[in-house]
Amino acid sequence: MTTTAHFISQALGLAAQALFLSNPNPRVGCVIATPDGRVLGQGFTQQAGGPHAEVMALRDAQAAGHDVRGATAYVTLEPCAHQGRTGPCCDALIAAGIGRVVGSIADPNPLVGGQGFARLRAAGVAVEVGPGADQARELNIGFFSRMVRGTPWVRLKVAASLDGTTALANGASQWITSASARADGHAWRARACAVLTGFGTVRSDNPRLDVREVATPRQPQVVVIDSRLQTPPDAALFIAGRACTIYAGGTLDAEFAARKAALQARGAAVVQLPNPQGKVDLHAMLIDLGRRGINELHVEAGHQLNGSLLREGLVDELLVYLAPKLLGPGLGMANIGPLSELAQAQALEFTSAERVGPDLRVLARVPGRGDF
Amino acid sequence: MTTTAHFISQALGLAAQALFLSNPNPRVGCVIATPDGRVLGQGFTQQAGGPHAEVMALRDAQAAGHDVRGATAYVTLEPCAHQGRTGPCCDALIAAGIGRVVGSIADPNPLVGGQGFARLRAAGVAVEVGPGADQARELNIGFFSRMVRGTPWVRLKVAASLDGTTALANGASQWITSASARADGHAWRARACAVLTGFGTVRSDNPRLDVREVATPRQPQVVVIDSRLQTPPDAALFIAGRACTIYAGGTLDAEFAARKAALQARGAAVVQLPNPQGKVDLHAMLIDLGRRGINELHVEAGHQLNGSLLREGLVDELLVYLAPKLLGPGLGMANIGPLSELAQAQALEFTSAERVGPDLRVLARVPGRGDF
Repeated sequence: MTTTAHFISQALGLAAQALFLSNPNPRVGCVIATPDGRVLGQGFTQQAGGPHAEVMALRDAQAAGHDVRGATAYVTLEPCAHQGRTGPCCDALIAAGIGRVVGSIADPNPLVGGQGFARLRAAGVAVEVGPGADQARELNIGFFSRMVRGTPWVRLKVAASLDGTTALANGASQWITSASARADGHAWRARACAVLTGFGTVRSDNPRLDVREVATPRQPQVVVIDSRLQTPPDAALFIAGRACTIYAGGTLDAEFAARKAALQARGAAVVQLPNPQGKVDLHAMLIDLGRRGINELHVEAGHQLNGSLLREGLVDELLVYLAPKLLGPGLGMANIGPLSELAQAQALEFTSAERVGPDLRVLARVPGRGDF
Repeated sequence: MTTTAHFISQALGLAAQALFLSNPNPRVGCVIATPDGRVLGQGFTQQAGGPHAEVMALRDAQAAGHDVRGATAYVTLEPCAHQGRTGPCCDALIAAGIGRVVGSIADPNPLVGGQGFARLRAAGVAVEVGPGADQARELNIGFFSRMVRGTPWVRLKVAASLDGTTALANGASQWITSASARADGHAWRARACAVLTGFGTVRSDNPRLDVREVATPRQPQVVVIDSRLQTPPDAALFIAGRACTIYAGGTLDAEFAARKAALQARGAAVVQLPNPQGKVDLHAMLIDLGRRGINELHVEAGHQLNGSLLREGLVDELLVYLAPKLLGPGLGMANIGPLSELAQAQALEFTSAERVGPDLRVLARVPGRGDF
């Protein structure tokens, strides 16, 4: 492994430590090392409003009394050049006398747009771009999605038996998968900016949809699709201090207004985005969620909403837990079909399959959805 | 790795070379090495009636001009002590002057039953038993099943979409999985003693059920469950030189007799094993297949027969290919249920999950079925 590959790999490992932390900012890691390969400092992006990876690494080096002049900064995303809640990272690197920057990939943020690398070069810093680009982008697939497409990366989570049943005909579905799989599912919630469900699930399961099974410094927001605003104000998903957005349709009668007021009194933001049928316009909702800074949208919904999202072509990825059992007929993963030809199938590509406790976790992508 | 572990691992690798070859004899490998670790000869079991692994290894050493006196024979199954179509292997080892035998596991064959190890010890050969036992048994799960339970190891193969659909409502099922998965499925056919299907599949797909996609020195037999003997004599599964057994129910009218005669004229063995409903008694069929020397029974049947085998508790293992697609409603993996409680599920345990081309191959066992 080359020195560059080694330090970029180390920086990617640091970036992964920001997985539950930095949202909606990207997960970035930084390693500062001497030309002969001695590490001077390292860091990763903190919570939104906190320091970015480069600043953390510079501070780490400073705390250890290291002189970083002439050193190389290995960073998994282009250093920012704009004044956000923190100062521009490339200015901090220049001011510290960094001699060379190896950056995995350009920042898709139009406010950065290559200006970070340009400003470094203009200041006489040697810049190399590319090592670790795929992993750095993958780690930030939701951030790239929001910046480039304007909409979140939509990951639909399903728990089913090996034969694809997610609930018995009588609705029984708790629990098909194991405690291990559910804990793993909480880790996927924790990395998302928001967890989305539908009113059907609220009515049948009354879930909290917060992260409980893994330690996390922040909770994702919760989003409910509820065309007629039927979510009861005492639903379990109203948790103090957690943002909740409810997307509704177009009804405008007095009863609807009263329900809306009651939900707003519970702290929910109610957004009406009706489609011509008076239901929620799902694509418009994703655009709105993008505007609200949602990178990864973690969907835990039922057969109906899963089907609607798939039929409208809005799902990017499936996160499927398969339990080692056969349940026979019942509700499937999504209300799609019935098909008359195999060629009409919803195509996917498997990206991973791993054991989680007794269960299997399968990740599958809709082909081409990652190409933006 | 110890010397013993090393040579047993090598012998297991040799045994695996007999996977498509030695049926219904077990897959066994043998390495003969000097006490200081120099390999003198190696071999694996040949086709039934041919030499066993130990004799092949002795011949290999002899052909190379090596003196095996005082050497150690590492063998993955207890050397046979009975006169079958070949002479007893333990006598050959003793006659050759082998000083020590490391055997993975005792032969479950009641004709051997520890006598092999006993006869070696009686002749002054040092014997160690145990290294590689689990792998040696696993490689011969069907042989152990037949010897201990009297019935084959029943492996049910299913090809489905990720959401568990094996055919659309209109019956369309060719092809859900990829050419890679189908070729892999042929390798699983090739290791079986027999491939089993039902008349429903014969009628709808008219399959050959032979091994075509991988090279094999022998073809598995074919077995059809056809209660009313409706398999047409021109069905594609009648292949010259390949044994075909058709299990029928109890009807005894003249038309049935005529069909039976026609199928026998095609070379099929027709076995009537009616249950009280006049259908095939599936458990009696497995006992009969055990008597006929079937170790691994590879089932490629439809929704109905899969369900019958599962409901009667006759399935040991599922070999499931999952294609990266969603098909929505249609036929599931097996006609079981509908269930009223999740606890009624057919329990399984995943033993492996691997990518095969674009698809996923999942092996799952019915808990406890391997404990015999």
